[in-house]
Amino acid sequence: MTQTISLNAVPRPAGGFFFEDYTVGRRFHHVVPRTLTAGDASTYIALTGARNPVHCCLPLARQLGHEAMPLDDLLVFNAAFGKTVNDISYNAIANLGYADVRFMAPVYAGDTITCESMVIGTKENSNGSSGIVYVRSRAFNQDREEVLSWARWVMLPRRKPGAEAHEPNVPPLPDHVDPKNYSVPRFLKPAALQPHYTGSGLLWEDYTPGETIHHPGGMTIEEADHMSATRLYQNTARIHFDAYAAKEGPHGKRLVYGGHVISICRALSYDGLENGFAIAAIHGGTHANPSFAGDTIYCRHVVVGREKIPGRDDVGALRLRMIGVKNVSLAKLPDLGPGEKNDAVVLELDYSVLIPRRGTT
Amino acid sequence: MTQTISLNAVPRPAGGFFFEDYTVGRRFHHVVPRTLTAGDASTYIALTGARNPVHCCLPLARQLGHEAMPLDDLLVFNAAFGKTVNDISYNAIANLGYADVRFMAPVYAGDTITCESMVIGTKENSNGSSGIVYVRSRAFNQDREEVLSWARWVMLPRRKPGAEAHEPNVPPLPDHVDPKNYSVPRFLKPAALQPHYTGSGLLWEDYTPGETIHHPGGMTIEEADHMSATRLYQNTARIHFDAYAAKEGPHGKRLVYGGHVISICRALSYDGLENGFAIAAIHGGTHANPSFAGDTIYCRHVVVGREKIPGRDDVGALRLRMIGVKNVSLAKLPDLGPGEKNDAVVLELDYSVLIPRRGTT
Amino acid sequence: MTQTISLNAVPRPAGGFFFEDYTVGRRFHHVVPRTLTAGDASTYIALTGARNPVHCCLPLARQLGHEAMPLDDLLVFNAAFGKTVNDISYNAIANLGYADVRFMAPVYAGDTITCESMVIGTKENSNGSSGIVYVRSRAFNQDREEVLSWARWVMLPRRKPGAEAHEPNVPPLPDHVDPKNYSVPRFLKPAALQPHYTGSGLLWEDYTPGETIHHPGGMTIEEADHMSATRLYQNTARIHFDAYAAKEGPHGKRLVYGGHVISICRALSYDGLENGFAIAAIHGGTHANPSFAGDTIYCRHVVVGREKIPGRDDVGALRLRMIGVKNVSLAKLPDLGPGEKNDAVVLELDYSVLIPRRGTT
Repeated sequence: MTQTISLNAVPRPAGGFFFEDYTVGRRFHHVVPRTLTAGDASTYIALTGARNPVHCCLPLARQLGHEAMPLDDLLVFNAAFGKTVNDISYNAIANLGYADVRFMAPVYAGDTITCESMVIGTKENSNGSSGIVYVRSRAFNQDREEVLSWARWVMLPRRKPGAEAHEPNVPPLPDHVDPKNYSVPRFLKPAALQPHYTGSGLLWEDYTPGETIHHPGGMTIEEADHMSATRLYQNTARIHFDAYAAKEGPHGKRLVYGGHVISICRALSYDGLENGFAIAAIHGGTHANPSFAGDTIYCRHVVVGREKIPGRDDVGALRLRMIGVKNVSLAKLPDLGPGEKNDAVVLELDYSVLIPRRGTT
Repeated sequence: MTQTISLNAVPRPAGGFFFEDYTVGRRFHHVVPRTLTAGDASTYIALTGARNPVHCCLPLARQLGHEAMPLDDLLVFNAAFGKTVNDISYNAIANLGYADVRFMAPVYAGDTITCESMVIGTKENSNGSSGIVYVRSRAFNQDREEVLSWARWVMLPRRKPGAEAHEPNVPPLPDHVDPKNYSVPRFLKPAALQPHYTGSGLLWEDYTPGETIHHPGGMTIEEADHMSATRLYQNTARIHFDAYAAKEGPHGKRLVYGGHVISICRALSYDGLENGFAIAAIHGGTHANPSFAGDTIYCRHVVVGREKIPGRDDVGALRLRMIGVKNVSLAKLPDLGPGEKNDAVVLELDYSVLIPRRGTT
Repeated sequence: MTQTISLNAVPRPAGGFFFEDYTVGRRFHHVVPRTLTAGDASTYIALTGARNPVHCCLPLARQLGHEAMPLDDLLVFNAAFGKTVNDISYNAIANLGYADVRFMAPVYAGDTITCESMVIGTKENSNGSSGIVYVRSRAFNQDREEVLSWARWVMLPRRKPGAEAHEPNVPPLPDHVDPKNYSVPRFLKPAALQPHYTGSGLLWEDYTPGETIHHPGGMTIEEADHMSATRLYQNTARIHFDAYAAKEGPHGKRLVYGGHVISICRALSYDGLENGFAIAAIHGGTHANPSFAGDTIYCRHVVVGREKIPGRDDVGALRLRMIGVKNVSLAKLPDLGPGEKNDAVVLELDYSVLIPRRGTT
């Protein structure tokens, strides 16, 4: 259950790694393990507006079977992701996509997250100045229990442009995580998620594939907000923090860390997905356009389907397509198919959330 | 002591409630109970500059008789208030006033706050497009002990303008909370509040009715600050967060949550009211003018009177009028009587703080 | 070991103290002791981007011999410093320098910091309108164990300009802290600082006197960030918070608290000084130019020397010169000697960090 990636730490060059440094099979043991605390949970709420009571209501957490409040899935994801940046995406031109993101075990205040990555594919761009690197990353708690696993691919510049080509090696990645691999703790009692806690009686059976949910809130991002969130995750990517250097960059200004946009969209979508109590998996995701301070983020969901979880009739999953947009009224936004381009779209996420089934409630 | 409001949760329409939805006697069980933590206490200090040592100095808290540091009264108030927004003021045009706000028991890190409200009055506006709703809200801890109770009234739009009128029903509200209803824990030893903790030897006897206190500090509010505070309270009112939609609104920009202004004024007033260690009650309050990011807040107090607390000669209360203003030098601000209009005034609060009496110290 | 400064608290005038109020030997017992918590540690990371794993990785902290994660040295320094502001630098024209700053014992979440100061020197300026006050400040934990001691000097206005002169009394201050006075807990096992924790195998022996380290990151400061940090430290100096009043001041805007700049530089310098796990002493420091919101901070270090610590062959110290600059590429910044003036320099700190020696690892 807790296979380990060997710990052959790769000495990191001072300016970070470039495309040529990544060869399939190379492993990275990311440094500065992070003990997450109740302080991080509070800061996360202050920066994102998260309201899922599983993470902020101890009596509910206990009725669900937890001994303490688990930390928000996306606080854990962003903290784990942050650990990989220095080795994987420090010099990234673009964070191209995610796949096969599995949330494997709850993380509690006091747990310490350690992360590792392995290169699973590389592909040169024809321009000879950059390439794509595919990485599998894994996060463990202090007991070496795997809590999170994800693949992502990034575009990286070559250290030395025009170097000779090598064979492309694009890894096979599942187009979705199989629900039989969703992690549902045996102790979990989903029936605890009652309307007086969450605000809604809508459960698994009540969502219809194809239906669209417009979440009512909107959140304007300030420089201080996205930087504080990104610092909380100890993510060191300069483009989020250094306005002086960013003036010379492609956007002329700082870029909002994409994981902060995911967190904002997840928080906004509480109104309408109140009982979707945990993220089981992210099947795929892209940051379709960049976000900047001053942008106001809105979120729409399309219900893709209902998924059954083997061995459980008290909890199922909703497969959802999260569409995060900026500076546009959702009412004026046309329907958008998967991957459909639109200048307002900043985030598209194909993912599944756990939600109680009516069967036993 | 811990009467409960019945839990007939009202299903909330997706766009929130409108004036017509509120009938006297209707009850709301507000969702997403909140477990407050030491993380929230720290975030509160970072966002407001609060310095009351009762909430940040464990040795003093223990000498006062607490087992741990109680959370700031206004952190608790704002967190509880935030819970009511989705049901009560989500569509509010204006938050008109507070009355009969009673702080009934200390709240500690680890406590979970649950809130309920009941409609106690309604009154249509003659324009037929809006009305005023009066609500009594109550907050309980995880032991169903009531920790906070307050009345407020808000102006709400009608869902369907021009509908037929109904009889106005304006509830009787006390013009002040009787000191015999102030909650002073029996264990409390106010004599622990010594000058080496608080910085001042001024006690109950040293404040003179009619005297004015100009607090020396000023605090400029940034968008990131008021939004972080309001998110910490899980307050969902769009007007505080959504700059894109706010452009079309009456102010053209985001509005600062009034509770953040109260917190700022309370923090500023530490210099001059050092031994006013807890808020006993807020008799009445209004946000006389809106606050926006960029405004600098200052605070003046007028001592209204000294109140005795039945059965205690070691602690009394000061009844105070807090006047929060923006972008004006206090020295240039004229004396202002209760409710006197002035463009600079953003907050007027008639309230009482507990303070040691010299009798036993 | 824990000599105390007598607690003759000086009643503080409402507008704070002026030059005339400071006489050599006068003692100040600073009020509002502060219990630091895990919440403060988290907020500190969110505001500064600190990544030293000693403070955020419990397993490492324990392997080092701590029972819990010690709080960041500069969180403690800034919180302690903040306590002194109301009495020492509330009316300061400038914070001129630091000397003999000794970090004497680790501070953990739950510890309560109390601070005291004594005037150790005064010197009138020839203009008759201001003078320099030299102060020794000390911070203690709840067991009266001294955790931090520092000297600083500030320029203060006279309450009544042109008053008669008195004899200058400039205290002798050491030009550096002797390594024999560095505090290294006996329990400390520096060998725990392995590259898989910190990201670097560079130890004491690997740094060469005279070498320059350019840290790769940059951090743009927002108003909300520096104000939140400064509020976290309960530092009340108006110039950091009050934009309305600052418009009339010498800079026309709010000034960033210098301690926030130190924290930013320390955080940026993690990349290059990964194993410099604790600050032993600050020999001297100045804020050479002011910082304002919008400035982007960069950091360069010059290795001044390697210091041995009596009785320990497993840990040494690096004496370093930290140069914090703003809005300039480090690559374009000339070499700067100690104290050399340059408009870009906002901070120069002569200090020493503890770092493992290869001897025993």
